[in-house]
Amino acid sequence: MKKILGTTLLLLGMTVFGQSKEDSIQFSKISLEVLNNGKGYNELRELTKNIGHRLSGSEAYEKSVKWAEQKLRDAGANKVWLQEVMIPVWVRGKESLHIKTSNGSWKSLKMLSLGNSEGTNGKDVSGEIIMVKSMDEYNKLTAEQVKDKILFFNYAFKQSFIETFKGYGDAAKYRTTAASLTAKKGGKFAIIRSLSSAFDDVPHTGAMRYEENTSKIPAVAIGSTTADELEALLKNQKITAKLNSNCGMKGEKLSHSVIGEITGKKDQSVIVVGGHLDSWDVGEGAHDDGAGIVQSIEVLRTFKKLGIQNNHTIRVVCFANEENGVKGGIQYGKFVKENNEKHLFAIESDAGGFAPRGIALDMDQTKRKQIQSWSKLFLPYGVYNFEEQFSGTDLYPLHDMGIPAAELMPDSQRYFDIHHTEEDTFEKVNRRELLLGAITMTQIIYMIDKNW
Amino acid sequence: MKKILGTTLLLLGMTVFGQSKEDSIQFSKISLEVLNNGKGYNELRELTKNIGHRLSGSEAYEKSVKWAEQKLRDAGANKVWLQEVMIPVWVRGKESLHIKTSNGSWKSLKMLSLGNSEGTNGKDVSGEIIMVKSMDEYNKLTAEQVKDKILFFNYAFKQSFIETFKGYGDAAKYRTTAASLTAKKGGKFAIIRSLSSAFDDVPHTGAMRYEENTSKIPAVAIGSTTADELEALLKNQKITAKLNSNCGMKGEKLSHSVIGEITGKKDQSVIVVGGHLDSWDVGEGAHDDGAGIVQSIEVLRTFKKLGIQNNHTIRVVCFANEENGVKGGIQYGKFVKENNEKHLFAIESDAGGFAPRGIALDMDQTKRKQIQSWSKLFLPYGVYNFEEQFSGTDLYPLHDMGIPAAELMPDSQRYFDIHHTEEDTFEKVNRRELLLGAITMTQIIYMIDKNW
Ligand SMILES: [Zn+2]
Ligand SMILES: [Zn+2]
Repeated sequence: MKKILGTTLLLLGMTVFGQSKEDSIQFSKISLEVLNNGKGYNELRELTKNIGHRLSGSEAYEKSVKWAEQKLRDAGANKVWLQEVMIPVWVRGKESLHIKTSNGSWKSLKMLSLGNSEGTNGKDVSGEIIMVKSMDEYNKLTAEQVKDKILFFNYAFKQSFIETFKGYGDAAKYRTTAASLTAKKGGKFAIIRSLSSAFDDVPHTGAMRYEENTSKIPAVAIGSTTADELEALLKNQKITAKLNSNCGMKGEKLSHSVIGEITGKKDQSVIVVGGHLDSWDVGEGAHDDGAGIVQSIEVLRTFKKLGIQNNHTIRVVCFANEENGVKGGIQYGKFVKENNEKHLFAIESDAGGFAPRGIALDMDQTKRKQIQSWSKLFLPYGVYNFEEQFSGTDLYPLHDMGIPAAELMPDSQRYFDIHHTEEDTFEKVNRRELLLGAITMTQIIYMIDKNW
Repeated sequence: MKKILGTTLLLLGMTVFGQSKEDSIQFSKISLEVLNNGKGYNELRELTKNIGHRLSGSEAYEKSVKWAEQKLRDAGANKVWLQEVMIPVWVRGKESLHIKTSNGSWKSLKMLSLGNSEGTNGKDVSGEIIMVKSMDEYNKLTAEQVKDKILFFNYAFKQSFIETFKGYGDAAKYRTTAASLTAKKGGKFAIIRSLSSAFDDVPHTGAMRYEENTSKIPAVAIGSTTADELEALLKNQKITAKLNSNCGMKGEKLSHSVIGEITGKKDQSVIVVGGHLDSWDVGEGAHDDGAGIVQSIEVLRTFKKLGIQNNHTIRVVCFANEENGVKGGIQYGKFVKENNEKHLFAIESDAGGFAPRGIALDMDQTKRKQIQSWSKLFLPYGVYNFEEQFSGTDLYPLHDMGIPAAELMPDSQRYFDIHHTEEDTFEKVNRRELLLGAITMTQIIYMIDKNW
């Protein structure tokens, strides 16, 4: 028995070694193809420079739908289609925020209304600013103190986390809840310090939510240095803020997610790779999430170009409306359920086009361990982290249906300097970093397609 | 025996666990201190914006010596001194490169003379361009073919390596040898395609060398897109190039490396952490190697600020003249030898201020394995790679004396887009990425100081 076991282990070992060598050769082919011939970077230039930012509901978003359709065909998808999605239409319009110091002079502050926020309908709304630096400080304020005031939530993004997504998660509640918290205590509007890892004057937008049964008052964001200056001013004087804005929800609209696939040779169970096609209405939506879109298209092109015969259907989904409604992700989940389509795996890239460091795994332990057992293959590509983590907003409906979900984990250091700002431009994306992300996604999909 | 062994292993295990926990707490303190209070980023702003590029031999370099001296004192060094170094003085002066196409019109090309190259003494030197794309193609050329011509070495930086330093190493011989290779076959001067991972028009300078007994003809670099355009032009016509430059070696000069230390409590054996203070004479020397300088100073400050009682002397060395002579590194090695100073370990940061991924280890196996056994402590900081690798130019003299040497390994994807160019500016450095590198260096030095 001992000998037989030895032999069996040896044979197993050889098989694993043989497999592993074949896989490592395939990994290398994928990498060479993408680094030498990848089109993702030039495609991102087109998307960001020819179309620019593309909030769902905008004309630009509709242009990006046509663009993505064409790119998927060019990449070799044998089937490309649009999936209908009803999306909320939020429009920013003109907006301004001024403060008056005790000497009576008005000063304009650089600001952005938060996404989905209502505005002031073009009228001046003003009041005295009260600053809180934490939820604790907010909780101590009485309705009497807040009535007719402007609440300034000056909570600083924590620099102390190594993964900046943790800092973002920690601060996010201020963005989502500031308006309703202010309204509950009778305030006129809310100002928040941006969810920003940078010490600059760039305001960051992003989605907020209104609680039910609270009045829909405006919420705006200011940059870190403006927040610091305002804090300094408030130390020794009363400051009045005046907001004038036109933003607001303008109903719904029919729009589309864009889908393209290479049908599987063995069966038609589906492997999804995607990103979101929409962006906020500032900057160019380059890292968020033009990067994820062009990387996903690159995966498909690389399979075609290398002639890898995929067993299962590899499907690129360019989700609509991730930023201010997630209607594309929700609709795709419904579609899968209604059509009873078997899905093996889904991965999204929506954390920026930076050099990849890992793949976040959101699935049962068995599947996770299997993927982790492949980790050595990824190490030469700088990809070493295969932890259990949240898999990305658009995939959540799939995850809830029990489908193994994953997200590309790029280096997170620079993302929240530019996330949801005018600074999220093509120039901030490095060609090699972007392509490395596409390589990681192609490699993991190659492994899933082969082994699952 | 079995039981005793079991108990011994258990106790050993507990010790390791206890140690490891203490170390992991210390790692966290270091990280919090640097991310929250680190001064490296602001210091880099001073060095790059107030002083700018600082080729050794220049006035700016002398300013940076004074600056570094002050910063080391501010950081808490109890001993700061200047180490005399005789450095070569190379001066660029005015320079221009033109090409004449077959239609007779002259066009100016963006270019940089390579560092240490002689120029044309302000005279026009011209000739027909012959292009080679590899050493093989060069080897096939006869002296007759090359005589009085301009040799254009159009070897493209390979995109296919994951680590861009491998691409740099692969292409570097073209930069170092182009002039002498051209001279040997009677050519007038050499043009090289820049050692660049970017597809742009930015020329990269960097050191070249003259072989003995070959005439010292000029060598210049052009950017990637200019090289592509020149290649396209050469397909169907003869192209004349005309160079006019004033660069050249202007003898030697006495200058200094800057050294600061916190003397060890237990003994005075030395742990070195350093970077090079000089830069090329274009851009601001931000990533190369202002980053390494401010990170090294940050290490010292962090030890002082956290009140870590260092057993051994922790010494920051800001090396002079890495770029075009390595005289600072060589001089430091001599000093150590002459003074018979015991050195435990030396680490340099000279690969850019990007997010760290590892530490290159250049030492015997025993020491290397010990450091590798600590790797789990570094993993939460994104630092996972502890391979045996070359330890950096300035430390080579120490390495040759048997001193364990190491180099911080930051993410390499962006470095060779901007290395040795006008684009190596403060704006290209991310605050968090820079500070993370300082954290890694402080952590490894903490471990060495405690355990060696
Ligand atoms: Zn996104
Ligand atoms: Zn350097």
